[in-house]
Amino acid sequence: MPLGERARDKSESRYCGVETEFSNDMPHLLSFNIDGAFDFVLTPLVDPAYRPSQGSFGDKGPGALPVAGSDLVLSPAQWSSHVVGKISSWIDLDSDDEVLRRDSEIILKQELAWASHLSLQACLLPPPKGISCANYARCVNQILQSSSNLQLWLRIPLRKHEDGDPVDDESLGGDPIDAWETWNSFRLLCEHNNQLSIALDVLSSLPSSNSLARWFGEPVRAAILHTDSFLTNARGYPCLSKRHQKLVTGFFNHSVQVVISGGKTSVDLAANYSGNHVDSNKKHPLKLYLDYIGYLYQKMDPLPEQEQYELGYRDFLQSPLQPLMDNLEAQTYETFEKDTVKYTQYQRAVSKALLDRVPDEKASSVTTVLMVVGAGRGPLVRASLEAAEETSRKLKVYAVEKNPNAVITLHSLVKLEGWENLVTIISSDMRHWDAPEEADILVSELLGSFGDNELSPECLDGAQRFLKPDGISIPSSYTSFLQPITTTKLFNDVKAHNDLAHYETAYVVKFHKVARLAPCQPVFTFTHPDTSPNKDNQRYTKLKFEIPSDTGSALVHGFSGYFDSTLYKDVHLGIEPTMPTPNMFSWFPIYFPLRTPLCIKPGTPLEVHMWRCCDTSKVWYEWCVASPSPSPIHNSKGRSYWVGL
Amino acid sequence: MPLGERARDKSESRYCGVETEFSNDMPHLLSFNIDGAFDFVLTPLVDPAYRPSQGSFGDKGPGALPVAGSDLVLSPAQWSSHVVGKISSWIDLDSDDEVLRRDSEIILKQELAWASHLSLQACLLPPPKGISCANYARCVNQILQSSSNLQLWLRIPLRKHEDGDPVDDESLGGDPIDAWETWNSFRLLCEHNNQLSIALDVLSSLPSSNSLARWFGEPVRAAILHTDSFLTNARGYPCLSKRHQKLVTGFFNHSVQVVISGGKTSVDLAANYSGNHVDSNKKHPLKLYLDYIGYLYQKMDPLPEQEQYELGYRDFLQSPLQPLMDNLEAQTYETFEKDTVKYTQYQRAVSKALLDRVPDEKASSVTTVLMVVGAGRGPLVRASLEAAEETSRKLKVYAVEKNPNAVITLHSLVKLEGWENLVTIISSDMRHWDAPEEADILVSELLGSFGDNELSPECLDGAQRFLKPDGISIPSSYTSFLQPITTTKLFNDVKAHNDLAHYETAYVVKFHKVARLAPCQPVFTFTHPDTSPNKDNQRYTKLKFEIPSDTGSALVHGFSGYFDSTLYKDVHLGIEPTMPTPNMFSWFPIYFPLRTPLCIKPGTPLEVHMWRCCDTSKVWYEWCVASPSPSPIHNSKGRSYWVGL
Repeated sequence: MPLGERARDKSESRYCGVETEFSNDMPHLLSFNIDGAFDFVLTPLVDPAYRPSQGSFGDKGPGALPVAGSDLVLSPAQWSSHVVGKISSWIDLDSDDEVLRRDSEIILKQELAWASHLSLQACLLPPPKGISCANYARCVNQILQSSSNLQLWLRIPLRKHEDGDPVDDESLGGDPIDAWETWNSFRLLCEHNNQLSIALDVLSSLPSSNSLARWFGEPVRAAILHTDSFLTNARGYPCLSKRHQKLVTGFFNHSVQVVISGGKTSVDLAANYSGNHVDSNKKHPLKLYLDYIGYLYQKMDPLPEQEQYELGYRDFLQSPLQPLMDNLEAQTYETFEKDTVKYTQYQRAVSKALLDRVPDEKASSVTTVLMVVGAGRGPLVRASLEAAEETSRKLKVYAVEKNPNAVITLHSLVKLEGWENLVTIISSDMRHWDAPEEADILVSELLGSFGDNELSPECLDGAQRFLKPDGISIPSSYTSFLQPITTTKLFNDVKAHNDLAHYETAYVVKFHKVARLAPCQPVFTFTHPDTSPNKDNQRYTKLKFEIPSDTGSALVHGFSGYFDSTLYKDVHLGIEPTMPTPNMFSWFPIYFPLRTPLCIKPGTPLEVHMWRCCDTSKVWYEWCVASPSPSPIHNSKGRSYWVGL
Repeated sequence: MPLGERARDKSESRYCGVETEFSNDMPHLLSFNIDGAFDFVLTPLVDPAYRPSQGSFGDKGPGALPVAGSDLVLSPAQWSSHVVGKISSWIDLDSDDEVLRRDSEIILKQELAWASHLSLQACLLPPPKGISCANYARCVNQILQSSSNLQLWLRIPLRKHEDGDPVDDESLGGDPIDAWETWNSFRLLCEHNNQLSIALDVLSSLPSSNSLARWFGEPVRAAILHTDSFLTNARGYPCLSKRHQKLVTGFFNHSVQVVISGGKTSVDLAANYSGNHVDSNKKHPLKLYLDYIGYLYQKMDPLPEQEQYELGYRDFLQSPLQPLMDNLEAQTYETFEKDTVKYTQYQRAVSKALLDRVPDEKASSVTTVLMVVGAGRGPLVRASLEAAEETSRKLKVYAVEKNPNAVITLHSLVKLEGWENLVTIISSDMRHWDAPEEADILVSELLGSFGDNELSPECLDGAQRFLKPDGISIPSSYTSFLQPITTTKLFNDVKAHNDLAHYETAYVVKFHKVARLAPCQPVFTFTHPDTSPNKDNQRYTKLKFEIPSDTGSALVHGFSGYFDSTLYKDVHLGIEPTMPTPNMFSWFPIYFPLRTPLCIKPGTPLEVHMWRCCDTSKVWYEWCVASPSPSPIHNSKGRSYWVGL
């Protein structure tokens, strides 16, 4: 039964499995463990003593695979919901022993064919035995080409050699052992196949946090917790170290299922299990471990409401808006207008600007002219009027909006609120409007996830024509930020399109299964108003990221982008991860993919170049990696992705 | 005028150019140099003193580019045949000085637009100034996207820091200087665009031979020889060092044009040039250098006849034959039958086998049964009969052939030659023939460029059924070989197909513009007859290539494959580069591409895995790079390329 219930969270991490040895009495094995409150068993499908090259085996006769039970011993639903197949762990497809290698290849194919026949959802592949895994990967890749739906979980020990550790296996040639590198080789050889995922063997000692963090960008489906990785608390019950607890909570948050592995006991007990439900819970030898995992699951903080709402957006590629070329729909306005935090920040900024601009003694005599450019359905008009009221300043508002549909709503709003004497509605593109007077304050919210990517600079260039020389622009500046990430899920989603254009498009994404490999760095900054003579909205920046050396090697699938904006003086607004505006939901970050994922070895800086390019009809970004190995220039001439002017 | 004439060789290397300074009298400049026997000039198109940011310039007025001459001063044919444009050498697109960077970008675009307007064939881009060239590459890449036909020659100094050399430029951060790496970054950023090629500046000292060899796999279009790279011989005439001579000959053989660069003198002289044809040859200050280059060109060995014949096949991708599924055409038999060397080797092998099998004293009493399996139109039947005659052994020949069209020719041949009592023609696939008796000797030639790739192993498995237990197979064994190569031309040809299948197909290729990066290594060996109980034609081999460290970094575009076959005892046949059968032309090598070219740093081994896989209907190869960074498994399940059984 599930570990617990969390509002709206239907992730698979609420199911807990148990690893068992081989048993040829599957019905008993299953009922013993299901009655023991586990949700599924991870169990061998074929007698581990069997070797194909040794011909007939046991009483099954020649040619028959000595399986744990015929397909008829369990119902199809039982096989598919409660059994994950464990491929024979003796296989070694990269052995120098040719007989062993061929036996391994034969049994792997046979067992996976059997698992498909049973409609299992997943099978666990044993860990690669040496540092080379090319033949293993090739065989698995061939099987993956056959387009069955079977998920393959490659078992990987959660281990990384840290500086100063003794190298514990001479056979590995003194190389540092980083299980992530084994995984990385395997999946590169298999071309990021999305039926291939990971089951991590969690051991009693854990590598560094930076090293662990890499796994959250990978398709980890299960974490196998061994009973000997548990501690014993003062009352004699099993528990986990703080670091292990944190890791397990991380797994729960990333849809990773826990599997408890307690060695052989469960099978022996299952064999003697009577099926008496009254006793069964008591009898399961791993009950206390399961209870503890359930306790960790249940004590997690509930998901904030906004997070619950956004669950469906996690790791989902969205094309960025074309806010100038396309008119937003009512639905979109509706969504963004709910972001009260954003408008509160604008109101604070306008208030401060009004107080700076009009001293108290002139509050009743001076009327400030404020223009909201890109007024939409009016939320910034309302925030500005509230700022005026709050500061007791007199305000005259122009609401400039290019979308005629939104203008209709604006007129209704003004009438409804009785703002006819305060607000003038202008149905025009701010870049072409011929203003009847100059503004003291220009308020706009034309920001994209990457700051300038919805062409705020170009729009405000047009609008600043009617700003007084000493006028104020809110926002006064914004900066974009970038950081390298591992995101197997998103890379695979981009790859699935199988064309160049999708590899060269920036997407809006609520990142979730992602590893952030280095701190963000600023990319482009725009300030407003900008009256410099050689004003140019083209930009070029080189960034050099240093991935912390205790991370180990890492694979870069691209970059996540953010922005931070100064609305006015100390009033900020933004999503940069170290200083996000709390509880604001109008922007998800942006994802710039790389056409070929790049493996970065420890201590090697990653040099990224980014350009903002403009011509008469559009703005676009180009990007590339220059070092350690140059990538193609992405999106040359905006061939794949651009924002229309 | 061309440097000389070579039979059938119409390569561009017979033209020699001269580099000049800026002149605004193009007609004089051109006639002076053409009359001086050069074929083209490499000359600036725009006054080098001009800077876009400084506005109007000279007497051309604002907005007009100070070009060397209007399009009307030369005829279109003159512009296009005799002028290569030199882009202003002051440009620095990766400068930290933003004004210089923008000026550079503007002038680069203006000059290339002007060159396109003039229909020039090529322009020379100045060398990247620093170790970073990303912005330069981006601008060039944008221009290359515009699909003009203009070729861009990136000027690259032929320089590589060798161990022990002092690092000669502190500004490069103490990094070893390898101009190849600059080129490699530039072209990776530009995605191997095939309008981008190289003009090498040949300096007075040359890097190591291994390092130089890399350039022969690259699209080098011109070699610029500076007068100060020349020596002076005893009689006071300019000449080149032995190593320079060898390099220049290598350039001639690879369609690289020489350009002589002698600084400013030629322009000054051109200005005073009267156009008097009688004097002109004497007057050109670089005449002696040109004469010497002509002398080097003319003293090259003439191309062997076979090479002349194969000129059209150089670096051209051919799909390998499907010899089992398809029947060869008469034309193909005709071509292969001309390869007398091959049949001489077979005759030698059969002779030795006959002598071993039948002692002299039994020569007249014993008749040897010899079966030619895959007899085609009969050349191996003829070679076998000639061996019998040569050794005075009695022979009974069965000629087994599956192609009914070739069988018709065989019958004519037997009648024509009066072999009716010696030769029995069998119209059958050797794999299914029910032979009336067993053979002493089985003769076949079913070899492909990669040995087993035309399924000789599978065919001979079928044929060895009717070989006596002590019978002899000719060939008795064959081995395939592989080596990593740089081949920009072929990689681009594969890339042009823009699909996965072409990246995963092996092609037959007469390699020419190729750099062989490491010695060949053996891959798969088959021996015949093979009577082992667990016979299996599947194979798996790991290869570890070490690129000589004085090569520097290198880009691997894939692998060239060869074979060597032991026909009988010491009689070999093959194309492996260190021991090819001389003057044999039946086989070109094979090319296994890599989907993504791989840069190998000095001292890093390259680990390649190769599989030969079989199922009931086909045979195919899979291959991958495992180290330094894993590639995808190529051609999984033979999805892109296979040979039908």
